[in-house]
Amino acid sequence: MNVTAPLDGLTVLEIASFVAAPLGGLTLAQLGADVIRIDPVGGGADLGRWPLAPSGTSLFWTSLNKGKRSVTLNFRHAQGRRLLGDLLTASGPGGGIVVTNAVGQEWLAYSGLARIRPDLIHLHIQGHRDGRAAVDYTVNAATGFPLITGPKGLEGPVNHVLPAWDVACGLYAAVGLLAAERHRARTGAGSAITLALADVALAVAGHLGFLAEAQLTGTDRPRIGNHLYGGLARDFATADGERVMVVALTRRHFVDLAAVTGLADTFTELERLLGADFGEDGDRYRYREVICALLEPWFADRTVAEVGRDLTGTSVLWSRYRRFTDLATDGTLAASPLLREIIQPGVGSLLAPGSPLVMYGTTGPRPAPALGADTAGVLTGLLGLSAAEVRALAERGIIGGPVPVPPGG
Amino acid sequence: MNVTAPLDGLTVLEIASFVAAPLGGLTLAQLGADVIRIDPVGGGADLGRWPLAPSGTSLFWTSLNKGKRSVTLNFRHAQGRRLLGDLLTASGPGGGIVVTNAVGQEWLAYSGLARIRPDLIHLHIQGHRDGRAAVDYTVNAATGFPLITGPKGLEGPVNHVLPAWDVACGLYAAVGLLAAERHRARTGAGSAITLALADVALAVAGHLGFLAEAQLTGTDRPRIGNHLYGGLARDFATADGERVMVVALTRRHFVDLAAVTGLADTFTELERLLGADFGEDGDRYRYREVICALLEPWFADRTVAEVGRDLTGTSVLWSRYRRFTDLATDGTLAASPLLREIIQPGVGSLLAPGSPLVMYGTTGPRPAPALGADTAGVLTGLLGLSAAEVRALAERGIIGGPVPVPPGG
Repeated sequence: MNVTAPLDGLTVLEIASFVAAPLGGLTLAQLGADVIRIDPVGGGADLGRWPLAPSGTSLFWTSLNKGKRSVTLNFRHAQGRRLLGDLLTASGPGGGIVVTNAVGQEWLAYSGLARIRPDLIHLHIQGHRDGRAAVDYTVNAATGFPLITGPKGLEGPVNHVLPAWDVACGLYAAVGLLAAERHRARTGAGSAITLALADVALAVAGHLGFLAEAQLTGTDRPRIGNHLYGGLARDFATADGERVMVVALTRRHFVDLAAVTGLADTFTELERLLGADFGEDGDRYRYREVICALLEPWFADRTVAEVGRDLTGTSVLWSRYRRFTDLATDGTLAASPLLREIIQPGVGSLLAPGSPLVMYGTTGPRPAPALGADTAGVLTGLLGLSAAEVRALAERGIIGGPVPVPPGG
Repeated sequence: MNVTAPLDGLTVLEIASFVAAPLGGLTLAQLGADVIRIDPVGGGADLGRWPLAPSGTSLFWTSLNKGKRSVTLNFRHAQGRRLLGDLLTASGPGGGIVVTNAVGQEWLAYSGLARIRPDLIHLHIQGHRDGRAAVDYTVNAATGFPLITGPKGLEGPVNHVLPAWDVACGLYAAVGLLAAERHRARTGAGSAITLALADVALAVAGHLGFLAEAQLTGTDRPRIGNHLYGGLARDFATADGERVMVVALTRRHFVDLAAVTGLADTFTELERLLGADFGEDGDRYRYREVICALLEPWFADRTVAEVGRDLTGTSVLWSRYRRFTDLATDGTLAASPLLREIIQPGVGSLLAPGSPLVMYGTTGPRPAPALGADTAGVLTGLLGLSAAEVRALAERGIIGGPVPVPPGG
């Protein structure tokens, strides 16, 4: 263990599946916490979640559980549940930190566990705050985003492919656990925290002004395709059949874009005719269609490489649209210091990301464990069980994972 | 100040604009930190960002800066920059925590500030790790998501409307600052942290398995509209012209969906004919088109209310697609304990969200300050300047904000 890692000494117990809680745990693991994911013997509901490697191993599971330890217990057996309770409330100043998204499992509730370890930090991720189930896809439908996403004129909703609410929820969970741990370090008091996926979506929609806009104007934003609401940004086709996203967020960006495309005089004349000021966000947005129509030929006459050459050195923000396979084959992943090669059990060699937080003491990516691989090690290390006791539990089917070899065996 | 708030005693200085850094600061403010946003006199580039209230005030700005204090300084004046440095390095055990997205401003760099306050925690949000600029819209184009979002058969990219990378980046920033503050509390050492928006997107794409999939399979996911990759979920039209999102993520969800729609026998026969097992994620996904085609009439025959009535009590996950104005008018916002009425200067009364993290000692939403409103208060409180000194600075144009009234004046 790296003694200088920011989260050195913290032990986080994760009893959860799918995206939010595992991403929260991963975030803390990549900053140096010892994160122990505890699953039922045989794995949770997300063990086979797509995408899959050619070997059949879930790349979803291995990607979200990098650098954690894996314990499997038989939750249906009273003694398995007892062991789980012992792990969640095990002593130690950095322990007793639990994140779960389990529904209706009384033995995972804060109240019972806090009777054993009063300074417990317990974060419960829910669908809705009232306990009703929800997932990213249903929460997203309920927010309003899918009906304003996608090309103008399209009927019906457009779902996101990135499970953005799960991602935000997992990161909020990491924030909540660290805030509670700070509080415990200062006061000795534990925390019962709840975090609902639906609240995450409403909070973020509110923090970005979408809810205020709906309340105060009583109208919904139109569906504007790839334009940027209240600014000037859009995708353009290039001569070589690619697309680029181009953003003029400020007056300076727009002035540079007008200059490089040779349209400065045209835009000035157009501003005069329209009584507009394209230096202002609102006017760039109101006249986005005519501005973009004037810009289109410049991009259509140039390859992506030529666009890049001409825009380099200006303030204009732009990027080529890429596919995930482009990232893998064009050298982006190999060149990025964020990623490093790992040997993932069940998968093989691949480039995987560490934490985007670059700070002293953080580690690069480490592979995910095989399911249950650390069961014996955690039970002996955290609970002080003997190897013989662990073997007996395995033989009775109360724990999973590889059975430790008997002495001399 | 609530002495029991989880982040009680922390002072975070934010010199940033737009989404990521302000959302990070907001996240900490809603857990009890004193967050001071410092802008140039007259405001930053995001002061007028859309959406706007009918009054013209930016709902973007006020929503992202709730519960902070606002200071304005003249950064072009050497003494204004000196005051800024004094604030960033002011003494106090919970101070010296800085988050910025400024580019090329040497007086905001870690190296110089840490010479004055060696235990400084300094988080620099960048576009790319090498210093090149980027925004959510260009980063998103570079990831691969826009080319697999939207209806099957559509040409070209579909941008997201939610700036998901900015949101994730802001939450990662909050995590980084809390991790560094823990490290400082234990060791006395400060931290220089960098966080690049492009790295956030690559890291999240990697953590969800998208990068591993591209590397190992060499192929891109197809554009599958509103279907869920590797599972069964899609939107359906209802008899009253609405749409609902329906998700069967597990075997149990699917069994319940088949039962409630009266299709259990049909699906069993279909599984036999196809040699498939719809209890398996992969088979539900492979045969998604035929399964959804069989489900469509059931939804088309029912209103949303009837769908809701019939699905209640089953495990099936579903939601109506709503507009932001629906949330405002159908009682969702008013009924949610997440939101509370605030009186926002420049805007008026509205419902605004607090933190989705429900934990002891957190506060509900508080309004954003008027730009510069706390300049005098912060300079006297944090730096110990006298009211006369503050007045003199204001008269010389070195600070903004309302000028304190002279004694007896």
